[in-house]
Amino acid sequence: MSWAQRIERARLTIDLEALLANRRTLARVAQGAELAAVVKADAYGLGLSPVAGALARAGCRSFFVARLEEGEALRGLLPGVRVFVLDGLAGRPPDRFLEARLVPMIGEPGELAAWRAFARARERRLETALLLDTGLTRLGLAEEDVRALMGDPLAELELVLVASHLACADEPAHPLNARQLAAFGRLRAMLPKAPAGLSASSGIFLGEAYRFDQVRPGAALYGINPTPGRPNPMRSVVRLEAPVLRVHTVREPGTVGYGATHPTRPGSRIAVVPVGYADGWPRAASGLGRARIAGCEVPFVGRVSMDLATLDVSELPEEAVGPGTAVELLGEGFGVDELAAAAGTIGYEVLTRLGRRFERRWRVPEGGA
Amino acid sequence: MSWAQRIERARLTIDLEALLANRRTLARVAQGAELAAVVKADAYGLGLSPVAGALARAGCRSFFVARLEEGEALRGLLPGVRVFVLDGLAGRPPDRFLEARLVPMIGEPGELAAWRAFARARERRLETALLLDTGLTRLGLAEEDVRALMGDPLAELELVLVASHLACADEPAHPLNARQLAAFGRLRAMLPKAPAGLSASSGIFLGEAYRFDQVRPGAALYGINPTPGRPNPMRSVVRLEAPVLRVHTVREPGTVGYGATHPTRPGSRIAVVPVGYADGWPRAASGLGRARIAGCEVPFVGRVSMDLATLDVSELPEEAVGPGTAVELLGEGFGVDELAAAAGTIGYEVLTRLGRRFERRWRVPEGGA
Repeated sequence: MSWAQRIERARLTIDLEALLANRRTLARVAQGAELAAVVKADAYGLGLSPVAGALARAGCRSFFVARLEEGEALRGLLPGVRVFVLDGLAGRPPDRFLEARLVPMIGEPGELAAWRAFARARERRLETALLLDTGLTRLGLAEEDVRALMGDPLAELELVLVASHLACADEPAHPLNARQLAAFGRLRAMLPKAPAGLSASSGIFLGEAYRFDQVRPGAALYGINPTPGRPNPMRSVVRLEAPVLRVHTVREPGTVGYGATHPTRPGSRIAVVPVGYADGWPRAASGLGRARIAGCEVPFVGRVSMDLATLDVSELPEEAVGPGTAVELLGEGFGVDELAAAAGTIGYEVLTRLGRRFERRWRVPEGGA
Repeated sequence: MSWAQRIERARLTIDLEALLANRRTLARVAQGAELAAVVKADAYGLGLSPVAGALARAGCRSFFVARLEEGEALRGLLPGVRVFVLDGLAGRPPDRFLEARLVPMIGEPGELAAWRAFARARERRLETALLLDTGLTRLGLAEEDVRALMGDPLAELELVLVASHLACADEPAHPLNARQLAAFGRLRAMLPKAPAGLSASSGIFLGEAYRFDQVRPGAALYGINPTPGRPNPMRSVVRLEAPVLRVHTVREPGTVGYGATHPTRPGSRIAVVPVGYADGWPRAASGLGRARIAGCEVPFVGRVSMDLATLDVSELPEEAVGPGTAVELLGEGFGVDELAAAAGTIGYEVLTRLGRRFERRWRVPEGGA
């Protein structure tokens, strides 16, 4: 076997070249629909500034965040792009949206009235997105709210987007998809003409009818499979490596970790790495999955603790693993989706949880990003 | 019913008075052992600066962190306290430990040799803690490593602590506790005399034999029950509130949320709050547990999404819930332990995950903290 590299501390590498390759893949599928980008939650935990910067330099002109503060942060980074705030006004001061030129996704009738009154008071036509509820029953104007607007030109507002969210886009055969598509068409027809957007990562793959004027991938840009159950068309964006801190050679029968859940036999060797649930490695993945040392797979054993996880390295030669040996925990082919499956969740949650204690490096595309 | 307050955004309140009350409770149980504090992972997510500051002003003189960087940050805040680094040197530059006056918990034989060589080269007697493995099989010197040191005065080092970790302290009847206690005594006897510490939050409650010179609670300070299965002797430290963003009155049979997992009947009302798994609300708690509005319990329904969660508020009067209404998600009696149980994990993981998008407020004890 080849010797593993040595590294000094746990390191998350975010491959901006893979990110942009994923954007190009999505552009091919989206066939001319504007390709916006969802960068909420610190770009799904991968760093708002480098991620949004790379996307903007690659031509992305529309970004989605969830909260007002995220929008303000993004505006500070990118003065020239359009920034949509998914929460809508959410009871926050309208002045701050105007000040940072943020477009609220208005999805509540009282909020729409407040935003229109604000526009009239400021004598400004305000860039606005309307969010329609077509079956997710979350944020969004309901059919009755939209019906109440019929014939209203919404003259105070510059409608730059009318949007909705699909509830089951990752299940192409789910009957709710077609029902939401039909409802979206019905509701749009009651409103002034405006660019439309329905699909996020998975919706883009549901066919042309779902793509409209704009699509807004998030997860797929970051390497999460938008087509669960089928091969992942996306490239892996994150790589996580950590050094071995210590190798135990077990002398007597015992156990590994809290709760003494994993029995060990004499002669086995246990390696400890500085990655725990406070770093976003899910405790639900305790004793599940494998990491790689110099390309060889080694199983996780015992409970994940707050700061540490443990691997059984008995199958590797003794000289191949010692303090400082690099362990690859996430990489191409064993990424966030695979870890999520082991932990009983989805890649989205794993990605947004990856912690702040890792060293973070952004791999910049050739020619700069 | 009483009307709920209105709030503007999701807010995590950290009650430093409850934190100090918990410290006093632990001091009574610890009966004279030095009461150190574990503040790794940003004080379990509650803010290193305010939490460590309050503890130091209450007399805490010894703090534990996991990583070198955490130790350096704490040194910048508190010049006069002792700071232990649980990872040990972990292959990081010894100079940085010396520079920030950090005490590495040395638990690997090669690391001990490197630290001693560093001390000799600097002609300094370095404050050092030895971490012994007594059955957790994680970090820590093994019996053979300690045996190799017998009779060695370790003259280069000022041994300020000899410590170990219990694997099953939260299960008082577990036989491993007594075995670890015996091993700790046996190993200590082979080393130069030094203050000893074995117990963290749960170990403190295992009886006098487990308390030695120093105990180092973390979780219990922050309100997590150190005695699972028995009443929690700790006060709740965190409170999470969020505003309702929107209330849907369901007109036709439908579903709530991604995956269309929760069916709704006409007439029911669904409230949306800006708390999702990117904020640390576990996706595994989807559709589980209850929040409170003006003291009344309302059930979570549907999947937790990245930025939002949904509640069925049909049982409350229509006028009692609208945009801006305060929802209490974590509080006294329905805290991190209860959420963790719903999500199939432990309070430690829930606490360290509570996200960075909330407004954070620290409630300061009377007379200042």
